Amino acid sequence: MSEPRRDALYNGLTSFQPTLPSSAYWNAEEYQRDLDAIWYRGWVMVCRAADLAQPLDYRVVTVGTQEVLVLRDDRGDIRAFHNTCRHRGSQLCRESEGRLKARLLTCPYHAWSYSLRGDLVRVPSKSLPPGFDRADYPLYSVGVSVWRGFVFVNLAPSPQGSAASAFDEASADLGNWPLEDLATGHVYSKVMNCNWKIFWENFNECLHCPGVHKHLSELVPIYGRGLMARHDDPDWALHADNDEPRFSGGLRTGAQTWSRDGQPLAIRFPGLTDAEQAAGQTYAMNLPSMFIVGHVDYVRTVRLLPLGPERTQLVAEWLFPAETLAGRPDLDNIVSFGKAVLDEDAAICEINQKGLRARPHLAGVLMPEEYDLHRFHRWVRAAHAGYIERGR
Amino acid sequence: MSEPRRDALYNGLTSFQPTLPSSAYWNAEEYQRDLDAIWYRGWVMVCRAADLAQPLDYRVVTVGTQEVLVLRDDRGDIRAFHNTCRHRGSQLCRESEGRLKARLLTCPYHAWSYSLRGDLVRVPSKSLPPGFDRADYPLYSVGVSVWRGFVFVNLAPSPQGSAASAFDEASADLGNWPLEDLATGHVYSKVMNCNWKIFWENFNECLHCPGVHKHLSELVPIYGRGLMARHDDPDWALHADNDEPRFSGGLRTGAQTWSRDGQPLAIRFPGLTDAEQAAGQTYAMNLPSMFIVGHVDYVRTVRLLPLGPERTQLVAEWLFPAETLAGRPDLDNIVSFGKAVLDEDAAICEINQKGLRARPHLAGVLMPEEYDLHRFHRWVRAAHAGYIERGR
Amino acid sequence: MSEPRRDALYNGLTSFQPTLPSSAYWNAEEYQRDLDAIWYRGWVMVCRAADLAQPLDYRVVTVGTQEVLVLRDDRGDIRAFHNTCRHRGSQLCRESEGRLKARLLTCPYHAWSYSLRGDLVRVPSKSLPPGFDRADYPLYSVGVSVWRGFVFVNLAPSPQGSAASAFDEASADLGNWPLEDLATGHVYSKVMNCNWKIFWENFNECLHCPGVHKHLSELVPIYGRGLMARHDDPDWALHADNDEPRFSGGLRTGAQTWSRDGQPLAIRFPGLTDAEQAAGQTYAMNLPSMFIVGHVDYVRTVRLLPLGPERTQLVAEWLFPAETLAGRPDLDNIVSFGKAVLDEDAAICEINQKGLRARPHLAGVLMPEEYDLHRFHRWVRAAHAGYIERGR
Repeated sequence: MSEPRRDALYNGLTSFQPTLPSSAYWNAEEYQRDLDAIWYRGWVMVCRAADLAQPLDYRVVTVGTQEVLVLRDDRGDIRAFHNTCRHRGSQLCRESEGRLKARLLTCPYHAWSYSLRGDLVRVPSKSLPPGFDRADYPLYSVGVSVWRGFVFVNLAPSPQGSAASAFDEASADLGNWPLEDLATGHVYSKVMNCNWKIFWENFNECLHCPGVHKHLSELVPIYGRGLMARHDDPDWALHADNDEPRFSGGLRTGAQTWSRDGQPLAIRFPGLTDAEQAAGQTYAMNLPSMFIVGHVDYVRTVRLLPLGPERTQLVAEWLFPAETLAGRPDLDNIVSFGKAVLDEDAAICEINQKGLRARPHLAGVLMPEEYDLHRFHRWVRAAHAGYIERGR
Repeated sequence: MSEPRRDALYNGLTSFQPTLPSSAYWNAEEYQRDLDAIWYRGWVMVCRAADLAQPLDYRVVTVGTQEVLVLRDDRGDIRAFHNTCRHRGSQLCRESEGRLKARLLTCPYHAWSYSLRGDLVRVPSKSLPPGFDRADYPLYSVGVSVWRGFVFVNLAPSPQGSAASAFDEASADLGNWPLEDLATGHVYSKVMNCNWKIFWENFNECLHCPGVHKHLSELVPIYGRGLMARHDDPDWALHADNDEPRFSGGLRTGAQTWSRDGQPLAIRFPGLTDAEQAAGQTYAMNLPSMFIVGHVDYVRTVRLLPLGPERTQLVAEWLFPAETLAGRPDLDNIVSFGKAVLDEDAAICEINQKGLRARPHLAGVLMPEEYDLHRFHRWVRAAHAGYIERGR
Repeated sequence: MSEPRRDALYNGLTSFQPTLPSSAYWNAEEYQRDLDAIWYRGWVMVCRAADLAQPLDYRVVTVGTQEVLVLRDDRGDIRAFHNTCRHRGSQLCRESEGRLKARLLTCPYHAWSYSLRGDLVRVPSKSLPPGFDRADYPLYSVGVSVWRGFVFVNLAPSPQGSAASAFDEASADLGNWPLEDLATGHVYSKVMNCNWKIFWENFNECLHCPGVHKHLSELVPIYGRGLMARHDDPDWALHADNDEPRFSGGLRTGAQTWSRDGQPLAIRFPGLTDAEQAAGQTYAMNLPSMFIVGHVDYVRTVRLLPLGPERTQLVAEWLFPAETLAGRPDLDNIVSFGKAVLDEDAAICEINQKGLRARPHLAGVLMPEEYDLHRFHRWVRAAHAGYIERGR
C-alpha cells in the first residue's frame, strides 16, 4: 500500500491519529464525564412532534439519569421539564407516555399543581412559609428545539444554539423531504451492550461493511469496497470518470431504495432532485443522539440514549407519507432490510466493546478511511475540553 | 394563603426550611454515612422478646452490612453478637431464625465454641499460639436493650442510652397497653425501592393523606384535611371549640379502631384512658427503626432495615391479646386496612424516590405542616454532625 | 492446652500471627490490588496442552477483566495473546474454545489479520497512515509457560520465571506421574461466592476436616485429627514410631486412592515409588491458580479464576491414562468422592465469606496448625509489597 494521496479532493486522513483512550468506552468516571459534558449540554432528540399530536399529550424520556417530561401545552406549544416536583422532589408523571387529564400537572404526592408552562399555581397547604413565593418555584425547565417535526431537548442551564445548528457539517439538509408530515410505520428498539460512542464510530466508517454487512454491501456497491464515497479512495482519480455505483456511490443499478429487493413503495416523494433520487440515500447526523436518512419513498431515523458505560438504547423509526400507510402496504421488504443492518451493527459494536478492556490496549489507531471517526473524536474531545474550561 | 400564625399553640413551621440535599437519598457515600452515623450508632428494633420465647432461640438480622445474632441464653437473658467467629471470621449461625441445639455456639468451620454469653470456651487445636488467651476472644458483643417486650440492638462500640431513651420526644408512652404480653397475629414484609429516610418523611406528615390515602382519610377525618392534629392548622383558633374529629383529630364518629369498617374486635384493652379510647390511635416512634401504634383492640408495629441507598426493608406486625387470637377471629377487617395504607405509602415513597435525581433539584422546601419532617431532618443532621465531631 | 513445642521437626506456628485484614476479602479496591499485583503478574494455569491438541485449536480464558486467547500455532507451538485487535480494540475470537478456520487470526470487525505468531499481516485499507508500520502492531502477547502438559499464561509486560518456578516450595514434584500423557475423564466447574484467597486458606489447613469432611476424614485418618501431617502435632514425638495412618498420614489401611470405597481403578501408574503408593495422594500447588494431586491411578487438578471480590470460578479435572478411559470404566466411584469434598469446601468457604463484614473483626488469628495459611499470607503480602515497590 502506498502513502496516502494528498490531493485536495481526497477525503482520507493524511496524518496518524489514535482513537480515544480505551477507558473512554467503559470507565464509570469517563461515562459520567460524557453525560456531564455532552448529553447534559447538547440537543438530544427524544420524539417527533407528531408523537405529541394533541394538547396535553406527553412523553417521559430518560437521558442518563435525568427524567425529562415533554408535553404539548394547552396552547399547542411543546415544552419540557424535569419530571420532578419542586416541593419534595417527587416524580410527576409516572407513565412513559400518555395524555394529561387536565390542564394542570399535579404532583401525585402532595398535589402541588403546575400550569403546562411550568408555573406553580396551587400549593394545598393551609399556609405558606415566610418568604415563600410561588413564582420562585416553577418546574425546572428543559430547553426544547423542534427541527422539522423532531423534538430535541437540552438539559443545560442555558442551552446554546438549536437542534438545527447541532447537525453535523457534513449532513445533507433533507429540505426536499416533507419530514414534518410523515407518519410512523414501524418502530424498532433494542439495547446494545456497548458504549454510545462505539455506535457512532461504527456509523462513521464503512471499512467494516464488506465483512459485516453482506446484503448492504450488495445494495450499496461502494460499501463493498470499504468506502463511503468516491473520494475516500486515494486512487479515486484513476476512476474519476467511472459512474458505476462501486465508484460513484449510490445504490446498485436497478435499486432505488433500502429494501430487500431494492424496490421502493408505490408513492415516492415528489420533490427530490435527480441527484437525491439517484443517490437513493441521503444522510444527516445530529450528535450525540440521532441520524436520519431520506430515501425516495420513506425516511428512517435512529436515536440513541445512554444507559450506562456499556449499555445504550437504540430506537429506530420508519416514517412514511400518510398516503402510503393508508394503503396498508407490506412494509416488511423495507423494514426487515434496515433491521438486519442495525442488528449487524449492534452485534459488531458489542464485539468491539468486549475487546477494549485489554490492559496494553491504551488506544487504537485510525486508518485513512476513518476520517469521520476522527472528526467524531475531535467533537468529543472539544466537548470535554469546553466542559472543563467552563469550570463545569 | 396567609402568613403562618405564630401563636404559641400552633404546630406549624414558622420559618423557611429546606429538605435534606437530594443526594442524601441516593448517593452511595451518603448512604454509608447514614449507616455509620445512625444505623451503626443507634438502637435498632430487630424482633420481640416473644420471638425468642425459649432459651437457645435465636434470630439473625442484617443491619446495613452487619449480621447480628440475637439469642436468649440458657439463663433466659437476651444477648446479641456479631454473627462472626473470632478465629477466621466465619459466619456462625446460618439460618435467619431457629433454636440452637446446644448451650454452645459452635462455628461451622473449625468448631470454635462459645458460651451463650459469648465466652470462647473451646478451641479444638492441638495447641495455642504463644500469648493467646481465650479470654481475649469472646464473640463481638452487640448492645441489647429490651423495651416492653421489644428487642433493640446497638452496634456502637459503647452504646449510649437505651431503647426507652431513644423514643421521639413526641411519642406517647403506651403505658396502658400490655405490650409485653401481646401475641403476633399477622406479619407483613415488603421491600420498598426508596431510601429509608423517605419512609420517615412520609410518616411524619399528612399533607399527602387526602390524595394518597382515601380510606384512611375517611377513618381519620383530620387527615383528610392534610393535617395530623388540631394545632397544625394556623386557623385552629377559629374551630377551637369544635369537637368534630375533622378538627379535634381521632377517628370518625362511630369508628373505634383502624379497620375497614372502623369496628374493633370483641376484646379491648381494659386499662386505656377515655382519651386513649377516644383517639383510637396512639403513636410512638423510635428512630431510625420503628414506630408503634396502640389501638383499642390491638397494637401495630412497623420496623425498617436499610438494604441500600434506594432499598429499604419494611416489616409490619399486628399484635393482639392472646385471648383474642385464641378465639380465632377474622383478622382481615383489621389487617387488610393497615396493609392497604402501607402499600399506599410504599408506592408514593417509591414515586418520591424516582424524582430526586433531577440535577437542578438540589433540595426541596418544607411547608408549615411538615414541622415533624423538619424535626426528623434536624435529628439526621445532628447524628451526622456528632459522628464527624467524634472523629468517627 | 500447652505452649507449642519448638522442636526442629514441629511444623506448627510458634508465634502469634493474624490473618489478612478482613477487608482483603471483600473490598473492591483490595480486589483490584490482588488482580494487579498477583493475577496480572503471576503464572495462571488456563488449560492443558492436550486441550489444544491440533494446530489452530484455541481457548479464550478470562483472568480478572483480561481475555486471553491461547492457541496452538501452525508450527505446533502454544502462544497466547490478548484477545483484542490492535486497530480499534475489537474482540478477536468470540467463542470460548474452538479451532481456527485458517492460519490467520482475522478480526471480525475490519478484517485485520494476524499470523498465529501475532504478526499483523493484512490491513484491508486502501492506504495506511503516514508512519504506520505493520511491524509495530503485532497482537499484544501474553507470556506462556508449559509445565508438564499444563499451560500457564502470564499477563505481566515482562513475565518473570516460569510455571515450573512458581510451584510452592512444599510441593511434591510428581516426576513419576506421566502428566503429559493423561486424558481428561471428567470436568467439574462451579462458581463459589467467596474471595479467591478464602479458597486457598481452606486448602492450606485441615483443622476444618473433622467437622466439614466426614468421608474424607475417614479416608485420610490424620485429617480426622485436624492435621495434615505427622509433624503438625506438637506431641508428635509421643507417637514417633506409630505407623498407623492417623499418625503417619496417608490413606486408611486398605484404601489406595481417593474414591468412595478407597479402591483404585485397574490400571495404576507403574513408576511410583513405594512411598508415593503408600501415601495415596501427592500434592503440588502453584499459586494463585492451581493445585494438582497424584493418586495411584489418576491425577486431579483444581484451577481458580477470580470473578469478583466475592466470586471465584473453580474448575476441577480428573485425568487418567488413556488406556484407563479406553476401557470405559465407571468413574463415579472416584469422581463423586472428589466432587463431594469440593462441594463441602465451597460451601464452607461461602460461609467463611459471609462473616467477614463484621466491623469489629479487623482480622482473625491463626492457630499453630495453620502454618501453611501463614505462608500463603506472607506470599500475598510480598506480592503486594513488590507491586508497590516497583511503582506498580
